[in-house]
Amino acid sequence: MDFQHSARSTELQATLRTFLDDVVYPAEPEFHQQEQANRSQGRPFTTPAVLESIKAEARARGLWNLFLPDDRFGTGLSVSDYAPLAELSGRSISIAPEAMNCSAPDTGNMELLAMFGSADQQQRWLRPLLDAEIRSCFSMTEPAVASSDATNIATTITADGDSYVVNGRKWWSTGAMRDECAVAIVMGVSDPDADRHARHSMILVPLDSAGVTVHRSTTVFGYDDGAHGGHGDISFEEVRVPAANLLGPQGGGFAMAQARLGPGRIHHCMRVLGVAERALDLMIRRSLDRTVFGGALASQGVVRDWIAESRLAIEQARLLVLKAAWLIDTGGVKRAASEIAAIKVAAPRAASYVLDRAIQTFGGAGVSQDTPLAEMWAGLRTLHLADGPDEVHLRSVARVEIDRVRGGRDGAR
Amino acid sequence: MDFQHSARSTELQATLRTFLDDVVYPAEPEFHQQEQANRSQGRPFTTPAVLESIKAEARARGLWNLFLPDDRFGTGLSVSDYAPLAELSGRSISIAPEAMNCSAPDTGNMELLAMFGSADQQQRWLRPLLDAEIRSCFSMTEPAVASSDATNIATTITADGDSYVVNGRKWWSTGAMRDECAVAIVMGVSDPDADRHARHSMILVPLDSAGVTVHRSTTVFGYDDGAHGGHGDISFEEVRVPAANLLGPQGGGFAMAQARLGPGRIHHCMRVLGVAERALDLMIRRSLDRTVFGGALASQGVVRDWIAESRLAIEQARLLVLKAAWLIDTGGVKRAASEIAAIKVAAPRAASYVLDRAIQTFGGAGVSQDTPLAEMWAGLRTLHLADGPDEVHLRSVARVEIDRVRGGRDGAR
Amino acid sequence: MDFQHSARSTELQATLRTFLDDVVYPAEPEFHQQEQANRSQGRPFTTPAVLESIKAEARARGLWNLFLPDDRFGTGLSVSDYAPLAELSGRSISIAPEAMNCSAPDTGNMELLAMFGSADQQQRWLRPLLDAEIRSCFSMTEPAVASSDATNIATTITADGDSYVVNGRKWWSTGAMRDECAVAIVMGVSDPDADRHARHSMILVPLDSAGVTVHRSTTVFGYDDGAHGGHGDISFEEVRVPAANLLGPQGGGFAMAQARLGPGRIHHCMRVLGVAERALDLMIRRSLDRTVFGGALASQGVVRDWIAESRLAIEQARLLVLKAAWLIDTGGVKRAASEIAAIKVAAPRAASYVLDRAIQTFGGAGVSQDTPLAEMWAGLRTLHLADGPDEVHLRSVARVEIDRVRGGRDGAR
Amino acid sequence: MDFQHSARSTELQATLRTFLDDVVYPAEPEFHQQEQANRSQGRPFTTPAVLESIKAEARARGLWNLFLPDDRFGTGLSVSDYAPLAELSGRSISIAPEAMNCSAPDTGNMELLAMFGSADQQQRWLRPLLDAEIRSCFSMTEPAVASSDATNIATTITADGDSYVVNGRKWWSTGAMRDECAVAIVMGVSDPDADRHARHSMILVPLDSAGVTVHRSTTVFGYDDGAHGGHGDISFEEVRVPAANLLGPQGGGFAMAQARLGPGRIHHCMRVLGVAERALDLMIRRSLDRTVFGGALASQGVVRDWIAESRLAIEQARLLVLKAAWLIDTGGVKRAASEIAAIKVAAPRAASYVLDRAIQTFGGAGVSQDTPLAEMWAGLRTLHLADGPDEVHLRSVARVEIDRVRGGRDGAR
Repeated sequence: MDFQHSARSTELQATLRTFLDDVVYPAEPEFHQQEQANRSQGRPFTTPAVLESIKAEARARGLWNLFLPDDRFGTGLSVSDYAPLAELSGRSISIAPEAMNCSAPDTGNMELLAMFGSADQQQRWLRPLLDAEIRSCFSMTEPAVASSDATNIATTITADGDSYVVNGRKWWSTGAMRDECAVAIVMGVSDPDADRHARHSMILVPLDSAGVTVHRSTTVFGYDDGAHGGHGDISFEEVRVPAANLLGPQGGGFAMAQARLGPGRIHHCMRVLGVAERALDLMIRRSLDRTVFGGALASQGVVRDWIAESRLAIEQARLLVLKAAWLIDTGGVKRAASEIAAIKVAAPRAASYVLDRAIQTFGGAGVSQDTPLAEMWAGLRTLHLADGPDEVHLRSVARVEIDRVRGGRDGAR
Repeated sequence: MDFQHSARSTELQATLRTFLDDVVYPAEPEFHQQEQANRSQGRPFTTPAVLESIKAEARARGLWNLFLPDDRFGTGLSVSDYAPLAELSGRSISIAPEAMNCSAPDTGNMELLAMFGSADQQQRWLRPLLDAEIRSCFSMTEPAVASSDATNIATTITADGDSYVVNGRKWWSTGAMRDECAVAIVMGVSDPDADRHARHSMILVPLDSAGVTVHRSTTVFGYDDGAHGGHGDISFEEVRVPAANLLGPQGGGFAMAQARLGPGRIHHCMRVLGVAERALDLMIRRSLDRTVFGGALASQGVVRDWIAESRLAIEQARLLVLKAAWLIDTGGVKRAASEIAAIKVAAPRAASYVLDRAIQTFGGAGVSQDTPLAEMWAGLRTLHLADGPDEVHLRSVARVEIDRVRGGRDGAR
Repeated sequence: MDFQHSARSTELQATLRTFLDDVVYPAEPEFHQQEQANRSQGRPFTTPAVLESIKAEARARGLWNLFLPDDRFGTGLSVSDYAPLAELSGRSISIAPEAMNCSAPDTGNMELLAMFGSADQQQRWLRPLLDAEIRSCFSMTEPAVASSDATNIATTITADGDSYVVNGRKWWSTGAMRDECAVAIVMGVSDPDADRHARHSMILVPLDSAGVTVHRSTTVFGYDDGAHGGHGDISFEEVRVPAANLLGPQGGGFAMAQARLGPGRIHHCMRVLGVAERALDLMIRRSLDRTVFGGALASQGVVRDWIAESRLAIEQARLLVLKAAWLIDTGGVKRAASEIAAIKVAAPRAASYVLDRAIQTFGGAGVSQDTPLAEMWAGLRTLHLADGPDEVHLRSVARVEIDRVRGGRDGAR
Repeated sequence: MDFQHSARSTELQATLRTFLDDVVYPAEPEFHQQEQANRSQGRPFTTPAVLESIKAEARARGLWNLFLPDDRFGTGLSVSDYAPLAELSGRSISIAPEAMNCSAPDTGNMELLAMFGSADQQQRWLRPLLDAEIRSCFSMTEPAVASSDATNIATTITADGDSYVVNGRKWWSTGAMRDECAVAIVMGVSDPDADRHARHSMILVPLDSAGVTVHRSTTVFGYDDGAHGGHGDISFEEVRVPAANLLGPQGGGFAMAQARLGPGRIHHCMRVLGVAERALDLMIRRSLDRTVFGGALASQGVVRDWIAESRLAIEQARLLVLKAAWLIDTGGVKRAASEIAAIKVAAPRAASYVLDRAIQTFGGAGVSQDTPLAEMWAGLRTLHLADGPDEVHLRSVARVEIDRVRGGRDGAR
């Protein structure tokens, strides 16, 4: 057992901490002013201009594409080595991940292209994504069916000569609203008569294809997530794309979705814990600054209880995420299946608790635009249902446990 | 013991149910379209036009000013009799309370004016409020101090000849952003050297007074609450108003705030439970309509558990609110002090649970603009800290209990 | 709405309070000493001798058989009128209910005999039960099957000429271990081919019948509940009883179990809340007496929070139980079905919370024999699974809700 | 980061698993029969005879004194290496820890003697403890004061010539009731005028000293914990012991208590998680075996939810304990202070959840003597208050966090 991060990861963490302190935190007010200005000028989905220079700075400092374990395209960091960097980036969730070209959904899409893309696809889409020249979205969830059961997906991807024809409705295609978003990876049924898990494929659909209509953005509580391109509600009507746009093998949609999942979950969950750390710090500072009934809030037993419980929640969830990362690194995504399901519940739950108590500590300021807390909370709340609701992940964990007992195996590993 | 509502209340409930079914629910889509249109036209704080006709209809049906127990001005309904009407109005929280001229903060302000206003004040402010010709706001909370400890309030109301001069900064003055909002009831320090509870006064400040600046509206989880006039952040700089604008006796601010509290809490809490009932119905309908893993969501044990727990939570909270109402009616606000503190925690907690599970049942639609759930949740979250955070109310309940045991008294009453 | 108890109930409450103060609380130490002495003399299931004089005193004060609404045999108090008396008796749960001849399972059995017994059965069994000359037990649950699904019950009651022959194994037959226990009401399958709810009957089996073997008592955590006759694990092997011992109609077992349920639940739940009130008082007293970190425990925010939450929990649960009682009184058990299921979860849950926090406040004394808390907690824990686990009752509540929405009905009633 | 246990620990885990399977689990019924027989023969505090042969077997297999990092006396395993062994021993909590001579409170006492004992003390007390020839107890907690604040300790240890004289009352001296218990380590005030943390000393008091009276054993939810020597309530009246019995330096009591704490907490917490793993396995097996409403309990969504949540709870708590162990190994007890406080809350909490749900799954069997669950639960409940209540540990965690933010330090480490 060794809870020490590798030398390389430790070094990068130091670099990232300096970058956050020197560049990112100081830029937050300007970022949000620009975001607000864009919104009031009717351009809510425009990326705040200040981001460009921050990105340049991140790249110059070697904080670029750290998420990608594939060393042909990325830095070759293991999932475990990248995990604490993802967490740090979560401390400035609006800026840091994108500044480092490590923001979802592009990270997952780049992983898919690195793993399963043809040389041409990598040239055409992966390269500009790695250089942040374009952005992409991932079109999986559909408004008409329960997305927690992936076999419900109804969009069709039908082979027709040298083309595929895509028909369907997708929503929650995060990032789709902004101009930079050039392409969607769309999941749909290509082989309706095949086995349950060989029925779907993924295909690259340029957003300027005929038949693609981005209708609107769905909101998250009252937030439009505009600076990151919102969440597109998109219809695909008789959208014809070249057969060469198929990503990976036909019928391989599920397997690829599965492969995309593991490391992406680690990233998400670690960022989420970075959000929680930021909120905990804000909560503690507020409790030191604010006086009530003759003393600082921090002297109230109930507030101290929240602070301690926050630490317990974060710490335990983080260790579980790190163990899942280590399992992926050492045994692959499949071996880590139960842990990957578990962290999807545990990390947002821990972070939601911390955010909620931070909001309570701030009172009216906590729910308003005067702190980042309410918006951070809203993002976290969504994670309890995005990419499968908590209940589905718990179901998976239970299945593994029941099989374990049936197989006479020990619970410790 | 008799859990039956009075004949008059029962009759009004029937009338209100019909009004909701015939007029209010059908108008919801239009209301929200107008709200959205106003927002996109840069007039977010404009009341949706459709509300006028709904108000006229409510008034015509005798559903007007039901909240006011004072029979010189209102209907003379007891708090207990009005409570179930408030709950029903909460089922369409954006429209029904205001349509019936029973929406906060005007209700509390009208109560204050009815109880403590001079004849002139009643003529000038109460009458047009009762007729919904103007709206008002209540300026109590201040951004610079912890509002959970009312002795922190720093705004000053200084006698100067025939005038008072008001100086201070207030926020969360709900309703202040809209044109109809004519007057604020401002709480401030008038007698800094008096006893702790005789230090503050309330004064009527027309919002067009020199020195009043409404800076902006604070948001609630991304929502501007525009259709109801937002939440004003207001500075009062050397605002001079006639001495006759003082509401009630000088130094009586605390006592009046206390008097305003009781019935207002009942209203709030019952509306909140109406919100929860609406959400529960939506949750159940969704769970019947949505299929996952081969069956309706409603057949899942975990979803059924949420439904049942929602019923337990609503039912218990409602009974506690109704008991508090009955205590106010039969023994006055003071005798009901512990219950009034308790329901402030219990009712929003129950409703928040239901809303959260309803959101989870709806998935992506639950957090978005496609259901009212996320916005309703945001309002509820605020109630855990508005008008004193939960912790302060629990503290009050504990004090009553400790005193009770010290006094050798039984817990049942 | 009227939360005032009836004059008769209020008067009896005063009498009972005096009885508790004058007679019961002072007798608690002796009761427990006798209980302990019996145990160390190898007679754990002997009723402490002091109980006899307390019973005589209760009867002399008119506090006898108050539970029985049937005015031929009991006092004719409504369920609502008796409810607060049951709560008060719960404040001294080991002594008061039995002292007043109002303890389970005899109360339920007396109700069954009053409602469904023949004149002969009433003469032979009900009369001595009403006079506390004998005790009885109720044999329903079986060790081999999940009792949460009553159709699992496997004991057989087979007609054979002028007799019935009973075969089966029952456990958790509370009270069966003591000498005074003369008779069991046994539930079993009499008509295996009938409809699911017409398959079972109840029969009176004297415990001295040939073929009845009381094997042992099951414990509750480490407690034997000896003073109340333990919990018998009983086998019935070819036990032959006269046909006249059948209680009510053959095949009527389910219907009678249902009828027995309603008022019994109210009694149980109210007593449970009496237990909670007692614990809350103990917790508060301890927190006033005990010093830590330079102040009374009661000055700690976290302890105050427990006290307040305890009040909220008790208060809300109590009101729900009282409403259920009122529904039974005014509309019958069926109309109150959802509430009867709900309180079975809500009341033990509230009380368990209070007890747990009381134990925590007392530290080591809380888990030991030096306070009654641990034993009270153990009894409460059992109520989360006795008479159907919480989950089954929540399931029932959910079903009512789903049917309600399907039927287009409102949630308020 | 490396979540793999060391080769030595892994090997010992395999040996221990085999020992559990071959020797310990099969001996459980006999152990409990002997325990019960001793109890019914009026000798509840007699160690079941079967333990001797199990101990011999453990020793023969090299599973002896593994807990002691000091390689002069023990095996020299690091805390991290021993941790998973402690967990495994928790799977048979009544037998395995003592069979391996790794049971509290002897482990902590042996650690104290190894670290601070004189050569003579080690010869006289440590050697026979290491050989399990005698047992010991630790007398710290006092009935008259709040033990959560150690400065409350009132027992005196007064130097008088060549002796010390001990006066005071202690309880919860676990193990003191059994014949083998030869000595107590007593904590008391030796230097009342010294600094707050230099006021106390520890001293070795043979239990056969004049003036020592073991009054009784306190129970834990009805259990006497007899097989492990109960929990002694002991008075020390003018007990005179040689000055050479002082353990470590006079005034060093606090520092030694602190040093004793760290590894002991790891042991406790890991054993607790072993208890939870055992309960989880039982719960799952029961849910597979038991049929309700036409299917196995394991097919119920709510039961699956418990199973999954149990896994999440155990897994996260275990990782936190292991990290604390690693911090102790690599940086010492002080550096791990916050984690050592945190696991004291987190591990019993996780285990209590699992046990409670296991009990619920078993119904009546769960609370009775027919499963080990209720007794295991009772032990866990006590851990929420033994050795400082949860609230005190959370308070410590909060203090570290507040200091961290004041110092401008990051939350990740």
